Formats: sequence, structure tokens, C-alpha cells
Amino acid sequence: MLLDNIQSPADIKSLDTAQLTALAAEIRTGLMNRLSKRGGHFGPNFGFVEATIALHYVFDSPRDKFVFDVSHQCYTHKILTGRKAAFFDDDAFGSVSGYTNPAESEHDFFNVGHTSTSVSLASGLVKSRDLQGESGNVIAVIGDGSLSGGEALEGLDFAAELGSNFIIVVNDNDMSIAENHGGLYGNLKALRESGGTCECNLFRALGLDYRFVADGNDIASLIEAFSAVKDTDHPTVVHICTQKGKGYAPAETERESWHWHNPFDLETGEDLWPGGGENYGDLTCEFLLNKMQQDKRVVTMVAAVPVCIGFTEDKRRLAGAQFIDVGIAEEHAVAMASGIAKGGGKPVFATHASFFQRTYDQISQDLCINSNPATLLVNTASVYGMYDITHLGLFDIPMMANIPNLVYLAPTSCEEYFAMLDWSIEQDQYPVAIRMPCNGVVHSDHPVATDYSELNRYEITQQGAKIAILALGDFYQIGEQLAALITEKTGIAPTLIDPRYITGTDDVLLTQLKKDHSVVVTLEDGILDGGFGEKIARFYGAAEMQVYNYGLKKEFLDRYAVEDVLLANHLTPQQIYDDIF
Amino acid sequence: MLLDNIQSPADIKSLDTAQLTALAAEIRTGLMNRLSKRGGHFGPNFGFVEATIALHYVFDSPRDKFVFDVSHQCYTHKILTGRKAAFFDDDAFGSVSGYTNPAESEHDFFNVGHTSTSVSLASGLVKSRDLQGESGNVIAVIGDGSLSGGEALEGLDFAAELGSNFIIVVNDNDMSIAENHGGLYGNLKALRESGGTCECNLFRALGLDYRFVADGNDIASLIEAFSAVKDTDHPTVVHICTQKGKGYAPAETERESWHWHNPFDLETGEDLWPGGGENYGDLTCEFLLNKMQQDKRVVTMVAAVPVCIGFTEDKRRLAGAQFIDVGIAEEHAVAMASGIAKGGGKPVFATHASFFQRTYDQISQDLCINSNPATLLVNTASVYGMYDITHLGLFDIPMMANIPNLVYLAPTSCEEYFAMLDWSIEQDQYPVAIRMPCNGVVHSDHPVATDYSELNRYEITQQGAKIAILALGDFYQIGEQLAALITEKTGIAPTLIDPRYITGTDDVLLTQLKKDHSVVVTLEDGILDGGFGEKIARFYGAAEMQVYNYGLKKEFLDRYAVEDVLLANHLTPQQIYDDIF
Repeated sequence: MLLDNIQSPADIKSLDTAQLTALAAEIRTGLMNRLSKRGGHFGPNFGFVEATIALHYVFDSPRDKFVFDVSHQCYTHKILTGRKAAFFDDDAFGSVSGYTNPAESEHDFFNVGHTSTSVSLASGLVKSRDLQGESGNVIAVIGDGSLSGGEALEGLDFAAELGSNFIIVVNDNDMSIAENHGGLYGNLKALRESGGTCECNLFRALGLDYRFVADGNDIASLIEAFSAVKDTDHPTVVHICTQKGKGYAPAETERESWHWHNPFDLETGEDLWPGGGENYGDLTCEFLLNKMQQDKRVVTMVAAVPVCIGFTEDKRRLAGAQFIDVGIAEEHAVAMASGIAKGGGKPVFATHASFFQRTYDQISQDLCINSNPATLLVNTASVYGMYDITHLGLFDIPMMANIPNLVYLAPTSCEEYFAMLDWSIEQDQYPVAIRMPCNGVVHSDHPVATDYSELNRYEITQQGAKIAILALGDFYQIGEQLAALITEKTGIAPTLIDPRYITGTDDVLLTQLKKDHSVVVTLEDGILDGGFGEKIARFYGAAEMQVYNYGLKKEFLDRYAVEDVLLANHLTPQQIYDDIF
Repeated sequence: MLLDNIQSPADIKSLDTAQLTALAAEIRTGLMNRLSKRGGHFGPNFGFVEATIALHYVFDSPRDKFVFDVSHQCYTHKILTGRKAAFFDDDAFGSVSGYTNPAESEHDFFNVGHTSTSVSLASGLVKSRDLQGESGNVIAVIGDGSLSGGEALEGLDFAAELGSNFIIVVNDNDMSIAENHGGLYGNLKALRESGGTCECNLFRALGLDYRFVADGNDIASLIEAFSAVKDTDHPTVVHICTQKGKGYAPAETERESWHWHNPFDLETGEDLWPGGGENYGDLTCEFLLNKMQQDKRVVTMVAAVPVCIGFTEDKRRLAGAQFIDVGIAEEHAVAMASGIAKGGGKPVFATHASFFQRTYDQISQDLCINSNPATLLVNTASVYGMYDITHLGLFDIPMMANIPNLVYLAPTSCEEYFAMLDWSIEQDQYPVAIRMPCNGVVHSDHPVATDYSELNRYEITQQGAKIAILALGDFYQIGEQLAALITEKTGIAPTLIDPRYITGTDDVLLTQLKKDHSVVVTLEDGILDGGFGEKIARFYGAAEMQVYNYGLKKEFLDRYAVEDVLLANHLTPQQIYDDIF
């Protein structure tokens, strides 16, 4: 194998075009090996093999610096920069993350997992280089799907002001995670169809120089284009057209389902973790489709991750004009939801907790100051959610629950979740966010409320004495186990409470607890700092009550095992029991 | 006066062009009356008089719906929609806010004060109208300065997808608060210079139809343009060129200082609240200029509000390439700062607390996950800061202080502030944010630390017993007064503590306090929810210590008097004394 002799990017510089093309084929066997067995970002990585080879052939990393947007296309870069074992040696899979990571290599400059950040991050490297009178090229890579994000557009707009070497490779595979959304994609199409000659050009309109490569999977033309812009003295976009999933037929045709893929059978392409059984994506989709059919004012909104609430292509078609995918544009989504609600519509916007982080100001200013009745569905806000450092769902409570006027609800079961969602859509008083359960579909035969308009009323689900357990959302089941353990060990039946509301304290109930309780335990599925439990601790600050807050430590976890994290944070019923007794 | 007969927009429809022009002059007398006596947004309002008249002449508000970006140009709209007394009758000044406000009028749809939101908010009204099969025009107004903001660019990009009536008036006065920054402004210039005919057109590149009005202060041509797009069936940009500050010579020439202006003498233009004396803007500017002169790696960054840290035009010129104004693009600024720090530079990015709200994800993902040593200066994060509902600086602690890896510092004096800033610039371990003091320039002869690298070490500034007062940042002086009051009334000298670090607890010191203290009082200049005091309450949750947290209630205040808010939140030393004794 050619790869046997490639330990660093320097080793590919002596290869000729035929050899580089052969190298691409070798790399795809490594990608296939890892992805078929471990899963990961398939389409972006398969489409960007040739471009990565050409970049490393032309530029001199790490003196020349690459910044990959989202970095879900960085596997070839990892293979060429000393990390090929992680793709060819099954035992070494765990040695790399799915994203760029400075801890792994001097060729990686940032931990990146959110979209639309590469141009801004790289522009800092440009400025820093220029301030210090250093040389070298700075190259940002960004996919077409990421271009619609506000940070990317701000970065592209500002780049022209830098006025020095800066190369922005736009990797256009005519696809976001799902199809693209936004007017700019018409311009990309016009550029593709005109061979880059179309006069109206988004990038030139933003003050950038521009170069077009029709076949972004052809190493020779990529090398020609990158060589032409190397060491130039001003910001330039190199717009390359690549095939998402290139080299594996199922991924080339089914581009959405192969953007990220579970482990699969190499021969048949069959999913090895096909899931099945109840899940909140499908259940939510079914609920919303039904609601939309009954009421034309209901509209479901997503930002490039429709499948997080089960809206596969067929379901999107069913929903028609009542379904909006804004593309990667969460800020716009929240503001637009506020506008829809103001106009009398009933918007439900869903995305991952980690991506809601892009919308703090829109939740505060556009939505909550105006108190418009939009619904936000916060997905994977949980220790049981996504486990990469860049996709953690552990910070939404401090971020969102301290914004005035927002009603943030934490359901403890499937039945309570849909009751809350139904109420939220039907009411017209409050902006409401709902923390979608993430600990499996737990059914409960405990009767659930249908009206949540009287805010901050916690529900006692088991009346006891001495010890009260306030078990929020996904951690309600830990609360149940703890209550059972306490009863079993001490004979005392503690009081178990479903707080339901994250955004306020039930002062009446908390005051009543003082009568016959001396210990309050809070449980929440997120970091403790700025969270729910601290509000309870503040409430009892000057009182006799002993308050124990359980949740997670404020830290950026990365690729963790849930059980380890629960143990480290004293979150098993036995640990809590030992703490309080 | 023509205005005598104008109670609603319907009343201007019978006027001819000459009368409408005369009306503009009358309106300017009202603007001048209010602004000279009360201060406010001068340039934007004076430039948009004719356009507002033309909009109300052509469209039928509130059936046709206007959404004004930032809404700092909405005074004429207020005058034409039943609120003229607030401009002509000095006693009625207080009857309107400086921004659009649905509580004031059915012609206002949103409380808006942050930039770059109008297109997204209005697109929600468009969608809502279409879902419900309603008719009417939706018109978003946005200034050229706001176009560089991520939310605006996301909104403009998505607008094309709506495919129905939507009119976006781009009010181009060739100016942000200061000069514009970003590549798109070259395109606006090319469009202006070509009479809108330039083939390369940002708006068309985003999929929008486009129309140009050369003189946006000429009522006749505005009426012609707006009439042409009224009731059209697709999104269209109407790009109008206006004169910022039109009609008042000083504001036409000194456009930056007249963007917002204090009350002034009508004859001379002289500022009636000229300020003077020490202020943190000038002091910070002087410090940073000195620092930049000593070290070429130091770079000062702002996002369209350079004067918040004293960088007037002459100072910006002095700083040269070491000063960056990214325009309205805070997301880009924080990510770029992370990149600069990664490359070995020493970036200091300053803006108002309220505008840091646009950068939660960038602080978390781009900066803190990567632990790059950038400095964020958080301005007007205080009850003593800006008092409009859209510009409150009371939420930064829950938003920022719960992000892992960030070191958020709260200085209690001028000396401590600059010691912290100096340390932050010189260190290379942590992303650091500093809450700029906002309670006047308070000097202290208490020696201040020069090294803050040992995190979360609170400082005991007065050793006492029984009661410990943790007085954070701007509220340190309230802590001093409370300590003095307690000593005076009881003879007990309490312990006074400057916590310095907002982002963590000093567990050693807090544990020591248990020995000879039974009461802990916390004081913070922001909302209590998710804040500093709750972390202390959590620390002592299961201990004997009585904890009293003082700070502000979680709510959106609007145009408040500081004394009222302090009283309502029990924040005077006497009130606190009465609570704890």
C-alpha cells in the first residue's frame, strides 16, 4: 500500500497524479473499515478524500493551517497526518475522535463540531499571523450546507477586510444533512451551471476573490486550483463541486440517510443497529402530523436536523407547507417562530440542545421579551444524549431556564411529554420549551395534567415524610429508585415530587415541606451550576432544611460512558442514599 | 400644522407630495424637540422621516405590517400612529419608549432593540399570514449597518424560500453606529454607484428580487417604489439610499457622534450632559493603547460599539491594525478572538452584556472548549447599566458563568479591574471574561493581586466573625456599607469578602467560614437565578449555615429607576440588615 510509506503529509508530495488517485482508493478502504464497524459521518468524508489529498499535496501543514468546518469531513486529514491506525486497525478506533482535535495532532487547530465556525476561527489565525509578521497560508474548509449559518455568513462578510492571504474552500456537494434551504443555494446552482462564470456571485458580493473547480473529486484540477491560490495576498474562495458519499453507491444515491450512518454490512449496506421499537422521534412526528392535520395554524420547524423529531422525507412531504426546514439557521428559526406565533400561528421548533446554544439572544429578545406562544422542543438535553464534547446536552438548563418569561418544562414520562406538548401548542400565553425525554420511552399510568398554565406548580407523586425527593425530568426514574431504596432500608417512605417546571420554584409546596421534612434531595439531568437544584438551595438558604443537589459537574465531558459519569457524580441511588444517611 | 389633523396613518393618504414634504418638516420639529431635551437615537430617526411617511402613505398599517430593525428609526412611525404627543408635548415624553412596543400601539408588532432581527421576525408574520390564508403586505425595514449580523443574513437567505409577498426595505445610509465593516459594503457601494444595476448583487445572490431608490429622502420616488412592490407575490428588497441625520447639519456631518445623542442646545448643538470626569471607557482605551504599543500581539476588538471602551475615531487611528471593528457581528468576533489567541495573539473583545447574548455558542464552542486565552470585556453588566428592556445587562452571570472553562472575574474597584485585565492579557491558560465595573469609577487603596491564575480564591478584605458578606463586583460597596451598618448597630464586625471569581466556589474558604460564622450573605449585581449566590447556597445546602442571597429578581425590567429596583429587591443595607436580624 502507498499508505505504508505515508507517516506525514510530506510523504505524499513525491507522488504523481496516478499514485495520488490510487491513494484515494486506499484511504476509502480505511474509511469503509471504520465506518462500517463503528458508524460515523459517511457522506462528508467519502466526498472529501481527493480534496484533502490535494490540499496536503499543495500546502505544507502545519505551517499552512487548515480549519475544517464542523470537521465531519476530516477523516482523510487524520489518515494523512499520522492517525491512519484509527481507520485500518480496529483496536485503534478509539484513538481518535470524530472531529478535529488539537490533543491528537499538531495538524489540528481547534476542537470543532458545530457548523459554520471555520471561516471565523481561521480568520483569527490570519490576523494573528499578520500581527506577528509570520508567513504561511490559512485555509478554511466549509461545506455548502454550513453557509446558511449566521456565524459563517458573518465570517465570510468580514474576511474581505483582512486583506491578506486567506483561502476559503467551499466544498459544495449540493446537500446539507438533508436538502439545502435558503436563497443562496440558487446562486450556488447558477455558479455550478455556469462553470463559476455567473456575474451575480454571492462570494464576490461579499468582497471575496473567487475561483471555481467543476470536479472536486478530480485530484489534478484541485491541485491546479490550490496551487494557483497558494501564497496569494488576499482572501479567495475556491468553490469546488464534490460528490457526497463518493465511491459507495448507496451513499451517493441516499445522501441524507448516509450523511451519518450506523455500522452497516459492507456487502448489503444493511444497518447493523437498525433501532426499532418506540422512540421519541417517531412518536413526536406522528403527534405533530396529526396536530397539523387538525389545525392548519400548527407548523413544525427544524434547522437541518429534521430526523431528530422523525421527519424523514416522506413525513416532510405529508406535512407540506406546515413543515419548515430553515437549513442551518437556528437564530432565524427562533425569531421566525416568534413571528409566526405573533401572527396567530402555532409554531413548534425542534433541534438538539447543543444547537439551541446558537439562539440564546433570539430566545431572550425575539421570543421571550415579546412573550409569544411558540414551542421549543429541546432534543438530547441529557447525559443520555450525544457524548462528543461539541454536542453535549448538559448546559441547556442554566442557559435557558434563567431567561425571564420562558416556561421550561421537564416531562418525566411519555404521557407527560405529550400532554405538555399538546398544552403548549394550544395555549397562547407563554413561550414554552420542553425538554424531550432522552432516557428511553418510559410509560406511566400515573394520571398526567392536561393544563400547565398555572406556572411552577410541582406535583407530589408520592406523599411521604422526612425526606423529599425533587426528581426533575429524565432523572425522575432515579428518584423513584432512590425512594424505593430509602423505604426498603429505613422503612421511611419519602415524598417524591415531579417538579415539572424548570423555570421557577413552587414556593407554597416548598414551604409546606418544612413542616414534616428535614431533607430535600434534588436530581437533574444536566450540570448543577446555574441549574434547577440551586434554586431550591437558595429557597431554603436561611431555613433549617438540609438540601442535597444532585446533577453533573460543570465540565466539558468527551466520549464518555454514561455509567462512569453517573458514578463520578454520585448519581446512583445507592451513592445518594449513602450521602444522606 | 398638518399634524393637527393626523391621528392615524389613514389621515395622510389624502395629502399631495408637497404636503407630505411639509409634513416631514413638521415631524422633524417634533423629533428635534424630544431629542434635544431628552436625548436618543438622532441620526437614524432624522434619516428615515420621508421613508416612513411614504410607507404609511402606500401601505395600510396595521393590516399591512411593518417590522423595524433595532427600531431606533421608528419615531416618525410613532408620530404617525397616534403617539405624536410624546414628541411635541414635553410632559408626554415618558409615554413612549425609544423602540417599537406592542403595548403602545396596534401598529407595533414586537419589542425590538437588538439589531438584525427584523427580517426573521417579519418572515414569521409572512408564514403565519400564508398558513391562515390571510392577505396584506409584510414589510421589514433594516439598516445597512444591521446587514452584517448573522441573524439578518440568515433571515435574508431564508426569505426567498417563503415565495410570497414580503417586502424588505434596506435603509442604506452608508453607516453603522460607526463606519461599516465587512465585504458586503463594497457591494452596497457598487449598487449605489451603478444606480442599482450592478450585475453582482448580494440580494439577488440570496434569491431575492431587487429594486433601487437613489434618493431615499425623496417622498415621490419612495412612493413610486413602494407602490410598485405593494401586493406583489414574492420577496423583494427595496434598497433606498438615505442621509443619516438628514435635516440637521451637525448630524449630517458628524454621523457617528450623532447616531445617539445626549440632550443638546438647539442653537449650538452643544452637549447638555457632556459627562467629564473619569470613566471606564476612556480609562480602558488608554490602558489598551498603552498595552498595544508595548506588544504588537495585543489586539482590541469591538463589534460596532467602539466607544463603549473609549475608542473614538482618533483612538482607532492610533491603534491601527491592532484595532478591529468587526461591525455588527458578535458571533464572528468571539470566534475570531479564539483564533487570534490560538495563533499567539492577545485579543481583547469588548461589547455590552446585552450583545454578548448573541455569542453564547461561540463562547462555549469556539472559545471555551478550546481553552484559548482570549479576553472578553463585558460592559454595562449591571443594574446601573442600560435600562431599556432590550438592553438589560442583568443576565450575563447565568448565561456566561455556567460555561465550563471560562474564568469570569468581577472587579470591585478601578485598581482591581485593571489588575485583572492586565493579568488576563498576559496569561495564556484561560479564556477570561471581565465584568467591567458600572457603578462609577471607585478607587481603592486596598492592595490588589496581580496574579489570578490560581482560580476561585476569594479574598477576605475584612476579617470578622459570625456574619460573612460575599459582595461580588459592583455590589462590593453595598457589602462595605452593610458591614459598617452591622458593626454600628450590633458591635459585631462581620467578615467582608471580595469573591473575585464568578465562575467557581472557594471551597476551602467557605469551609473555614463554618467554624466561626453562622450567616452568609451574598450580593450580586444581576438576577439571582442561575447566578453566583445560588452556588454558595448549594455549597452550604446540607450545612448549618444560614445563607441569604441578594440580587435581582428574574424579570424583564423596562425604563426603571435604579433606586426603585434596589428597594424592590431588598438591596439597601438597611433592608438587608432588617432581613437578617
